[in-house]
Amino acid sequence: MRIEAVDFYYLSMPEVLDIGDGSQDLLLVRLQAGPYVGWGECEASPLVSIASLVCPMSHSACKPVRDSVLGQTLDEIADIDRIGDLVRANSLDLLQAPHTLSGIDIAMWDLLGRRFETPVYQLLGVERAEPRLPYASVLFGDTPAETLAKARSIREKGYVAAKFGWGPYGLGGVAEDAAQVAAAREGLGDDGILLIDAGTVWGHDLAAAAARLPALRASRATWLEEPFVTGALDAYAALAEQSGGVRLAGGEGSHNEDMARHMIDHGGVGFIQIDAGRIGGISPARRVADYAMQRGVAYVNHTFTSHLALSASLQPYAGHPARSICEYPVELKSLAWEMTREHITPDANGLISLPEAPGLGMTPDLEAAKRYLLDVEIAVGGNVLYRTPELVG
Amino acid sequence: MRIEAVDFYYLSMPEVLDIGDGSQDLLLVRLQAGPYVGWGECEASPLVSIASLVCPMSHSACKPVRDSVLGQTLDEIADIDRIGDLVRANSLDLLQAPHTLSGIDIAMWDLLGRRFETPVYQLLGVERAEPRLPYASVLFGDTPAETLAKARSIREKGYVAAKFGWGPYGLGGVAEDAAQVAAAREGLGDDGILLIDAGTVWGHDLAAAAARLPALRASRATWLEEPFVTGALDAYAALAEQSGGVRLAGGEGSHNEDMARHMIDHGGVGFIQIDAGRIGGISPARRVADYAMQRGVAYVNHTFTSHLALSASLQPYAGHPARSICEYPVELKSLAWEMTREHITPDANGLISLPEAPGLGMTPDLEAAKRYLLDVEIAVGGNVLYRTPELVG
Repeated sequence: MRIEAVDFYYLSMPEVLDIGDGSQDLLLVRLQAGPYVGWGECEASPLVSIASLVCPMSHSACKPVRDSVLGQTLDEIADIDRIGDLVRANSLDLLQAPHTLSGIDIAMWDLLGRRFETPVYQLLGVERAEPRLPYASVLFGDTPAETLAKARSIREKGYVAAKFGWGPYGLGGVAEDAAQVAAAREGLGDDGILLIDAGTVWGHDLAAAAARLPALRASRATWLEEPFVTGALDAYAALAEQSGGVRLAGGEGSHNEDMARHMIDHGGVGFIQIDAGRIGGISPARRVADYAMQRGVAYVNHTFTSHLALSASLQPYAGHPARSICEYPVELKSLAWEMTREHITPDANGLISLPEAPGLGMTPDLEAAKRYLLDVEIAVGGNVLYRTPELVG
Repeated sequence: MRIEAVDFYYLSMPEVLDIGDGSQDLLLVRLQAGPYVGWGECEASPLVSIASLVCPMSHSACKPVRDSVLGQTLDEIADIDRIGDLVRANSLDLLQAPHTLSGIDIAMWDLLGRRFETPVYQLLGVERAEPRLPYASVLFGDTPAETLAKARSIREKGYVAAKFGWGPYGLGGVAEDAAQVAAAREGLGDDGILLIDAGTVWGHDLAAAAARLPALRASRATWLEEPFVTGALDAYAALAEQSGGVRLAGGEGSHNEDMARHMIDHGGVGFIQIDAGRIGGISPARRVADYAMQRGVAYVNHTFTSHLALSASLQPYAGHPARSICEYPVELKSLAWEMTREHITPDANGLISLPEAPGLGMTPDLEAAKRYLLDVEIAVGGNVLYRTPELVG
């Protein structure tokens, strides 16, 4: 069968706040081949990914992503890789293309899973999806007192692990940051797993990051995430050498497999964090998961949007050891929560598991989605290249 | 003074062909601050860069590029770096942003050059722009006979150096590629400088690239460019170890300084090729040029569009040794040639020099540009976010 439609839908909260919360909008992808439909999601900037789906060709290696997808045969798993390679070659010079491809790749896996009535992880060759220990992923409070309250509330809800990130962390002094980390540890309790996310705040500044290590060690943080931008491999490697028990985490900025491998090979990270909605989809994410396992680096999903995106980002390492941690956003905006009928929620033991339903196991709630849908229209030279299509199942 | 306007204009040939010719469209940037105007150009995919200029904010690290530029103070060189850092932080998760920033950075340099009545290279601290030996950059012919004729014609026009790339190279067998390279050498003459560009055709496939080395050595090619995609550092390093007299060139895909450094530090390239229209502008390109010099790697511009882009891409290494080579496209489409009133052309000795006029020394020919202008309109949720503004000087 051939891919007959690839449609993008821009969903957004009515108001988008200037905070580090990625659940405020999303780009829903609907892919149709024969009688089957698959769903996916792209990170980040819905409008720009829509533009790269439909833009006019600039030259042979700068084509719109749609041109490498529409009309292609999609019968088996090998087709997904083939189509991904086509996009990477034909849109080589189109910088946004990997984000755009991500949602399409995810939707192709979902579609084949529905067709073969099999969960995606089984299509990936994993017999049994191991349960994961979710860490509650939240923003730091504006003050240590707020962070303390957040951490206590997280623990009360049954989460053993939590990640605090962004907000004021790294923007003030070393002492302020230490107070934030100590508050998070206090609220989470001595036996909790504490993770800290600096959100690239120090750029390439090794000394600024190193100055935070004593407080992180004192609070027994398991990791320091993204002290630097993704490409700062030298700074990562140098910090990893002195970080002791606090390991480095990073990689969410990877928009291809090579970048993730470089974080492992040259950056010395202990945890590699991959967003299937950015790296080009489940396919390259799976290859990174395998590589990380082989190199003794722990693979962790990066997810800050809907449970469709969460399911997609958990599939690539479904077979990794049971109870290894996974990112689980707990402050989702209503859009990201309401967009799917099913949800992945912790069981009585505080663990989460992938759905056993076909594909990604997520059904978009189209009535809910329509409440957040933004109509987009793009015209070039008087020709309408994109107009939001009707949202149907 | 403050930046009051940043306007993007999508110019295109009436017909864009499915060939590796990047001169078929371009994105012209006009920046205004106080009474001054500066001009720049972004690679690649004009529509997608326009979308990333104006897209709605997704979260605090995924803002439209315009938000970090409009209203900013632009009085001195340090402001250019400051604004670049703002864009990199505020649009961290917006993948297309570096291409968008590139044209803005170039326009800021042009504007300050015009304001201070100084060529950009002098603002960069270079006393005297050294002349460059241009290599005629062309596509391979469809057959060795066509390539032979192209090479002879190039030599007859006075070029001592030429680069052949894309077209059929790497798509057929080793023997066909050898015939193409031999034809290029024959047409160029024994004393010509021959450069070969594989246009990433082998992806990560070390063996496929290595199989071409004997023919490249036999024809005394100075470099093999882009045997692999930009991120394939291991393959680059492994090929560099066995390439002997044929050195590797690459880096045009770098969309930040880190990527270019990785090509030097981990990829073993002998030539690092940077497009100021992709890497974030003249500012990061200059830092890469300095780093390459320090590491004994030759810096070369990557340019396949207008002479405005050519001037911008030559500035970062204006002070490097005289007569070092530079890319010089000689098959420009009419759009790319007509867009500027001035042109950079070889002198009696076959060398080219940067303009001594203020800024980039290039005046856009607005009447010509208007003939190629495509009106763009982007609306989200019923609000028009972008409509091509009037093109004025």
